[in-house]
Amino acid sequence: MDFKLVAEDSGSKARSGVISTDHGEIKTPIFMPVGTAGTVKAVHQRELKEDVAAQIILGNTYHLYLRPGLDVIEGAGGLHKFNGWDRPMLTDSGGYQVYSLANTRKIKEEGVTFKSHIDGSKHTFTPEYAIDIQRTIGADIIMAFDECTPYPCEYGYARESMEMTHRWLKRCCDRFDATSSKYGYSQTLFPIVQGSTYKDLREKSAETIASFGREGNAIGGLSVGEPAEMMYEHTEIVCNILPKDKPRYLMGVGTPENILECIALGVDMFDCVMPTRNARHGLLFTSEGIINIKNEKWKKDYSPIDEALGGYVDTFYSKAYLRHLTHSKEYLGAQIASIHNLAFYLWLVDEARKHIEQGTFIDWKNVMVKKLTTRL
Amino acid sequence: MDFKLVAEDSGSKARSGVISTDHGEIKTPIFMPVGTAGTVKAVHQRELKEDVAAQIILGNTYHLYLRPGLDVIEGAGGLHKFNGWDRPMLTDSGGYQVYSLANTRKIKEEGVTFKSHIDGSKHTFTPEYAIDIQRTIGADIIMAFDECTPYPCEYGYARESMEMTHRWLKRCCDRFDATSSKYGYSQTLFPIVQGSTYKDLREKSAETIASFGREGNAIGGLSVGEPAEMMYEHTEIVCNILPKDKPRYLMGVGTPENILECIALGVDMFDCVMPTRNARHGLLFTSEGIINIKNEKWKKDYSPIDEALGGYVDTFYSKAYLRHLTHSKEYLGAQIASIHNLAFYLWLVDEARKHIEQGTFIDWKNVMVKKLTTRL
Repeated sequence: MDFKLVAEDSGSKARSGVISTDHGEIKTPIFMPVGTAGTVKAVHQRELKEDVAAQIILGNTYHLYLRPGLDVIEGAGGLHKFNGWDRPMLTDSGGYQVYSLANTRKIKEEGVTFKSHIDGSKHTFTPEYAIDIQRTIGADIIMAFDECTPYPCEYGYARESMEMTHRWLKRCCDRFDATSSKYGYSQTLFPIVQGSTYKDLREKSAETIASFGREGNAIGGLSVGEPAEMMYEHTEIVCNILPKDKPRYLMGVGTPENILECIALGVDMFDCVMPTRNARHGLLFTSEGIINIKNEKWKKDYSPIDEALGGYVDTFYSKAYLRHLTHSKEYLGAQIASIHNLAFYLWLVDEARKHIEQGTFIDWKNVMVKKLTTRL
Repeated sequence: MDFKLVAEDSGSKARSGVISTDHGEIKTPIFMPVGTAGTVKAVHQRELKEDVAAQIILGNTYHLYLRPGLDVIEGAGGLHKFNGWDRPMLTDSGGYQVYSLANTRKIKEEGVTFKSHIDGSKHTFTPEYAIDIQRTIGADIIMAFDECTPYPCEYGYARESMEMTHRWLKRCCDRFDATSSKYGYSQTLFPIVQGSTYKDLREKSAETIASFGREGNAIGGLSVGEPAEMMYEHTEIVCNILPKDKPRYLMGVGTPENILECIALGVDMFDCVMPTRNARHGLLFTSEGIINIKNEKWKKDYSPIDEALGGYVDTFYSKAYLRHLTHSKEYLGAQIASIHNLAFYLWLVDEARKHIEQGTFIDWKNVMVKKLTTRL
């Protein structure tokens, strides 16, 4: 993997760049649609390319490990071959899902033992095994196995957890460096900064993570329920320490507003289930503001969903039709809204990139944040 | 509407033809995907055209009347404008859904009073109102309001019901002929043969329906639970009476085998929820036979779903991937399987048409029926 800075904003820490992988380039800042179980929910791979213009998507190690299972993915020749997505992919390490989804889990120095949310079967993820699994899944960017602390989190626990995450990182790196890609293309490992909402821990963690000298770095443990201002504060602390010449990935963030604010703080990569999950409930992010498509006011609004965006679903289908589909709980409603919300997120980060490169980012961002948080 | 016979099979009653409507031509024999609530479930309009190659789709009067409601559809300028499907459409009269879905219903000479399955609200459909509603929905082909008798049905009830259906047909025709299309293109009204599984009633009904001299005729009250042989028997009785120079539509039929057998009896048009409903449960109709994609045997089968069919989903996605999606209850599983099954049905009727025109229909049909009923 290679990262080239293209432009830096004079009025903020925002920057644009290009990540190169064996599956192609990613222009940053970038939003990565979440493809939990090997599929971005309700969206065909063709649509992800042509309508959403996704450059990289996520897979979830926990989900893929449990179903379809590693033998099926390895038999296909990796996740790219299994689901047909031939552009870059990133997998999380499974840690977050183990803590939030698994029925029971026991965290020890060695690793985490948990029971599957699907069938209750017992499994253990160690840092080494999380790397092995991700070697088998075959994403271009794989994540270190960490503990994501909840919010709020008591200081003592946050410190101990962070220290364990650092020891686990060493084990992840050792395993990663001792093994190689299974499918003939390069993989890279991103470590994850933790430290909850404590400034000294965040600084310590950022410095430790940076010292590993990997090709990119991630910020975890934010967007877990803390106020947005606190998320920005800690993102800023960490971005000021993480090296400038490597991509920074803020995990699990967030609303369009969150993304613009964190781009201004120097973040390059984002992922979040929000655009697809909200879509399935009829909540749309548009270039003019937020729409709850189920509201009465859209009943006879035959205008396109978001003409400014262009693209098939945004110009072909009307708000009134999408409202009907959403009320009727039709698959097509989730399909249209998911493509729309993702296309909007990708449009937003692309606009951000252009404004960074034109030197007009901050003014544009301030106008957009106001617009995007308006409820239409 | 206009119907031209193109070819007749020498070894059976099969025929090919072309129906012309203001929204374009339909080559027969044809299968019409069911778009219950203004959407063919899980399939984008673009996919219906490009991947399924649908020539005409159905809408359901009962569903559309209840939701989104006539005001919304009329405000859009009819269903074509509302959902964006610009090729021919057909609506049923709502009768079948009233009998099978509504909570309570009371059938009288005047019409049927029922309670909505959505909110329990009370409504009345008369033959006249069923025509008015379908004028407002704006399908190219609209159906007479009839009573669809269940199977089995006692002779006395079947006769009285059929006679009422005939009286209702007169009222439908009177209303249809006294009104005109709302959106500037032609509509046509098809009457429906009833008579349950009684030969004399079927003959009587077919003669009565034919005497109305409408532009096409439909056969109702079959595929409601009777054995396939009985369905074929009554389809044959009716086809031998209905005029040759007008399209014959067998409502709600059926499996690929049913369709081929009924094409051989002289049917031109079919509709059925089976391809889409079965798709959502992982049951695929393919050119080699029937697949239950959830079965273990497809777990590591990385071959395309049905290469013979060509098309995006059939060549891009593998059986193993579709199996995983279906087991995981992912939207994309229903989407892929729905497009596949519909594309298969459209491929099948297109192959039938070609074989009729090449004079090789019967031999091909006999081979195909064996193949299509094989469980892979």
